[in-house]
Amino acid sequence: MPGPRDPMSVPNPRSIIIDTDPGQDDAVAILLALSVREALRVEAITAVAGNVPVAQTTANVVRICDLAGDTTVPVHRGAETPLLVPLHTAEFVCGPDGLAGGDFAAPSREPTPGNAVEAIVSILRAAPDGGVTVCALGPLTNIALAIRLAPDILPKIASIVFMGGAMNLGNITPAAEFNVFADPHAAAIVLGCGRPMVMMGLHMTLQAIATHEAIAAFAATGTATARTINGMLTRPRPGGLGSVGHPMHDPCVIAWLLWPDLFGGRDCHVQVETSEGPLRGRTTIDWHGRLRLPANVHVVDTVDAPTLFDRIFARLAALP
Amino acid sequence: MPGPRDPMSVPNPRSIIIDTDPGQDDAVAILLALSVREALRVEAITAVAGNVPVAQTTANVVRICDLAGDTTVPVHRGAETPLLVPLHTAEFVCGPDGLAGGDFAAPSREPTPGNAVEAIVSILRAAPDGGVTVCALGPLTNIALAIRLAPDILPKIASIVFMGGAMNLGNITPAAEFNVFADPHAAAIVLGCGRPMVMMGLHMTLQAIATHEAIAAFAATGTATARTINGMLTRPRPGGLGSVGHPMHDPCVIAWLLWPDLFGGRDCHVQVETSEGPLRGRTTIDWHGRLRLPANVHVVDTVDAPTLFDRIFARLAALP
Amino acid sequence: MPGPRDPMSVPNPRSIIIDTDPGQDDAVAILLALSVREALRVEAITAVAGNVPVAQTTANVVRICDLAGDTTVPVHRGAETPLLVPLHTAEFVCGPDGLAGGDFAAPSREPTPGNAVEAIVSILRAAPDGGVTVCALGPLTNIALAIRLAPDILPKIASIVFMGGAMNLGNITPAAEFNVFADPHAAAIVLGCGRPMVMMGLHMTLQAIATHEAIAAFAATGTATARTINGMLTRPRPGGLGSVGHPMHDPCVIAWLLWPDLFGGRDCHVQVETSEGPLRGRTTIDWHGRLRLPANVHVVDTVDAPTLFDRIFARLAALP
Amino acid sequence: MPGPRDPMSVPNPRSIIIDTDPGQDDAVAILLALSVREALRVEAITAVAGNVPVAQTTANVVRICDLAGDTTVPVHRGAETPLLVPLHTAEFVCGPDGLAGGDFAAPSREPTPGNAVEAIVSILRAAPDGGVTVCALGPLTNIALAIRLAPDILPKIASIVFMGGAMNLGNITPAAEFNVFADPHAAAIVLGCGRPMVMMGLHMTLQAIATHEAIAAFAATGTATARTINGMLTRPRPGGLGSVGHPMHDPCVIAWLLWPDLFGGRDCHVQVETSEGPLRGRTTIDWHGRLRLPANVHVVDTVDAPTLFDRIFARLAALP
Repeated sequence: MPGPRDPMSVPNPRSIIIDTDPGQDDAVAILLALSVREALRVEAITAVAGNVPVAQTTANVVRICDLAGDTTVPVHRGAETPLLVPLHTAEFVCGPDGLAGGDFAAPSREPTPGNAVEAIVSILRAAPDGGVTVCALGPLTNIALAIRLAPDILPKIASIVFMGGAMNLGNITPAAEFNVFADPHAAAIVLGCGRPMVMMGLHMTLQAIATHEAIAAFAATGTATARTINGMLTRPRPGGLGSVGHPMHDPCVIAWLLWPDLFGGRDCHVQVETSEGPLRGRTTIDWHGRLRLPANVHVVDTVDAPTLFDRIFARLAALP
Repeated sequence: MPGPRDPMSVPNPRSIIIDTDPGQDDAVAILLALSVREALRVEAITAVAGNVPVAQTTANVVRICDLAGDTTVPVHRGAETPLLVPLHTAEFVCGPDGLAGGDFAAPSREPTPGNAVEAIVSILRAAPDGGVTVCALGPLTNIALAIRLAPDILPKIASIVFMGGAMNLGNITPAAEFNVFADPHAAAIVLGCGRPMVMMGLHMTLQAIATHEAIAAFAATGTATARTINGMLTRPRPGGLGSVGHPMHDPCVIAWLLWPDLFGGRDCHVQVETSEGPLRGRTTIDWHGRLRLPANVHVVDTVDAPTLFDRIFARLAALP
Repeated sequence: MPGPRDPMSVPNPRSIIIDTDPGQDDAVAILLALSVREALRVEAITAVAGNVPVAQTTANVVRICDLAGDTTVPVHRGAETPLLVPLHTAEFVCGPDGLAGGDFAAPSREPTPGNAVEAIVSILRAAPDGGVTVCALGPLTNIALAIRLAPDILPKIASIVFMGGAMNLGNITPAAEFNVFADPHAAAIVLGCGRPMVMMGLHMTLQAIATHEAIAAFAATGTATARTINGMLTRPRPGGLGSVGHPMHDPCVIAWLLWPDLFGGRDCHVQVETSEGPLRGRTTIDWHGRLRLPANVHVVDTVDAPTLFDRIFARLAALP
Repeated sequence: MPGPRDPMSVPNPRSIIIDTDPGQDDAVAILLALSVREALRVEAITAVAGNVPVAQTTANVVRICDLAGDTTVPVHRGAETPLLVPLHTAEFVCGPDGLAGGDFAAPSREPTPGNAVEAIVSILRAAPDGGVTVCALGPLTNIALAIRLAPDILPKIASIVFMGGAMNLGNITPAAEFNVFADPHAAAIVLGCGRPMVMMGLHMTLQAIATHEAIAAFAATGTATARTINGMLTRPRPGGLGSVGHPMHDPCVIAWLLWPDLFGGRDCHVQVETSEGPLRGRTTIDWHGRLRLPANVHVVDTVDAPTLFDRIFARLAALP
């Protein structure tokens, strides 16, 4: 059961849950989602450990909502650790608070009471069948726990659109992309859940480069949002990343809901390596259908990056 | 952090949660626990998929309580499937309803509302530190989910005493014992949780043989409980099992709480193989300390079986 | 110890051993090697099981030499099976005799007495240090056996240039290229041998496309070699392969010795997955140096295909 | 194809090859073999890296032959390293020269020219079908290489009797016995070769305890052989090994050829774990036939130790 080809067949505004571990590009994705309220109803934003520990990712979600002027979307704190592997955060990329370069204030509020996993279960149980799209921007721990805790929620999920995996080289190891590497067992549970899945893998998101010119033009709008995004995307980064511009992995998840015409892809069988060793977190994508196994994921492999960033920055310009 | 050497250091009655997938020897274990109320307070019995699917194991728990004359202990339904591997039940051993040979009536009541995992979390949150002992008689799915959903419950756990694993040969494969094989990822989570663990592995429980003579003597008491236990333990079984008597795996978990003097063991480092292949579910027990890793489990390896069954049947004789 | 950057620093003619499992593109590679005697001295051609069983690959080597007019190069039969995994041949790609589409006569002679592995050992023992380049066009079984049987030969090897592995997608499975998949343990032995290695992986050889136009132009020369190559490269192939032209994997190995200026690459750490499962035979290439392990392979990633085929066909035109 | 039930059905003297990595108990095994020339014709003794590096194991074989008064049996040097895993020797058990406690002179001769693997191939090629029994006392590297180099030798092998593996706990890791751990890939090749196999695993050889009394009685004979064996078996050993006596693993291989009546066992399917990790080298023995796979090994599990050592010391008393 691959991803839906036509995400626009769902009614507007589409109900979504964003599960996330901000992270700079998570922040841009969340801001984008909060800028298109006519199209997306954000039922909750649930935080998970990933780029930084969960206490920080939870606070970061609130800080990002504050920047967008939103003080009402429920923000829940979720899993502290991956299911089986130890937690490895990525402060060396994101900075100590996960949002280095941004100009975020302290969070205006405490997280919403109730664990992220229980919140996901509650929202889905209250929804009609196919009523909610799950947008996963970090390790898939919360979503996997929700599925195993309450498998009755599965029919309520329209699809799970996630940033994760790689067809070619990884970024945290030669074989693996960070989000899947960070909790490979959760990824395996989610990929096997039987609902439509859409994969925004590194092979595609590395094409979604916001150029220096596009970032600068947006920065010139002078809003607080523009100032913060500019600060995050132009900060010095390790390893010479960002010479041409800045890849925006997570915003592709939200963008795919809004503008599926910008992306190309294929239904494939995808599986995740969970064992220890150099291939932990490898996503094996049967792009050519050699295994003759049923497709379980719509794997996106192309994006029209210039149009994508035209549209993203146009929407973000409407935020404070 | 191995298991406590002296389980009797906790106050009486000791609060316990029984997590179980009945199963004939689960039934004997539950009956034993319900027969010693001065020593054990059963806070809840939580059912998990294992020997038979979870709807049946849940109903079976109620049927067992009914036989013991108990209609008040909370009985919660838990996980439908293991965390990652497919569910493989064992009707070929236990019979279609899991309690073949027993003389159980239909269940007198519905399960208590609320998922087993959430019930475990609630009970532990309400307890003082070290306030509850978890007795695990089946696959460890529910307990692993509770730990990952709510790691704040860990200090509340006095210890986790589980039937599972094997130092020598397995019973479901040459390498693995059924409970660990059925959900190796859950076992890995639980073994790594950092709380005191006590392992009742197959290498020991296969010594806990209720002889034909002991079973017959108990049957002669003529109670409903005796009739049912006799029926379950004397039914024909596959593979010539039971020539000398009937191994009573799960009752060892409850017995260890009551009569630790009957058992011998050692603190060891134990790990579980989670990868696919012929060793899935293998418990590697570092009995001789070769790996120089910290002990995480008190591995029981000996039992005084004659005294054990004298005491078990003496207690069970007090049931209806 | 990566591959030598400047293969032309060795004296001419360079002594080589070709280890091979013909296969159509092995045939082109061998013909190319036999067409440049001023540059390459072929000490022996050793056959291994791969595309077809070893009796057939051995006969095929003789048939290819016959076509080139060579009746003197030693041709040795080697390993019947991979080291540990079962033999899986590829007649569905190469045809029943491995050279479908070609116009080869029956072999003119028996193989040279003596096993391929022993021949490799003998030739290397008789050579000066760094005296022989090993060109590996098939599974690496023979070479791995020679290394383990006689590790004293290692200093005699100038480098091992092999077609195998993939940075991106595989061709026999989603993860693995055929030659490495066919004997992953042999590949692991060879990659770990400590001598300079040059890897012609699928990510590069799929760029080495002989266009229909180039093939047709060569065919027009009318030689027996041209007729045979045209027949092999224009035959119908499974799965719609060959729409633009025909990738010529193995000839890149020989071409790299002759014209290293046509190729680009990088020294990397490369390892092979040997375990069973969907990643068997995966070559993990640390292209970005994330693992901080010493480079063991010069991984070629670019080729100037138009110039490559201009030069290859110019040389092949000199054959009968 | 399990091991032959009746090894005495072969004609006397039976031709054997001993492949070995001495090692104190290898020494006793070799001495035993050289003491029964009416029953065993030792065609060659081939040395492999294991307890100590191969240069030392080769010299040790000569030293052991010298002690037995034999200067003619061919002694060949074999593999320097395991097939894939790094060499890990066991000087911490055997002492720096592998024969600590013994009273061996320097070797009287150089090894016989020719590699051990080639010698094994030559001897087997010259034998009739089923003409030679292979006795393996160390890692199986040489034998695996011979099988892959020259699969035509397989019919010549009557059976392969090896010391290695474990049904219960290992000795080098919790899971693995030293010989199989040292080269698990070689063990997998040999176990899969299709010839009759007899396994002397740790679960049995740990029952083959030469008591202090038996050792002392033999020492009282006063021969050079007795003095040396006494010295080796009574030396201080790590980890308190040897409190009751001294397990004699390798001599069981030779003893099984001479006195099969002293051993009990069963035909089983056995496989070896080759992957990295805590189970590397684990032998999974399907003792109860749960996997319904064909038996490939006769697994010995019992020995009459008192009679065994009566007979062994009686024979050894005939040596100088």
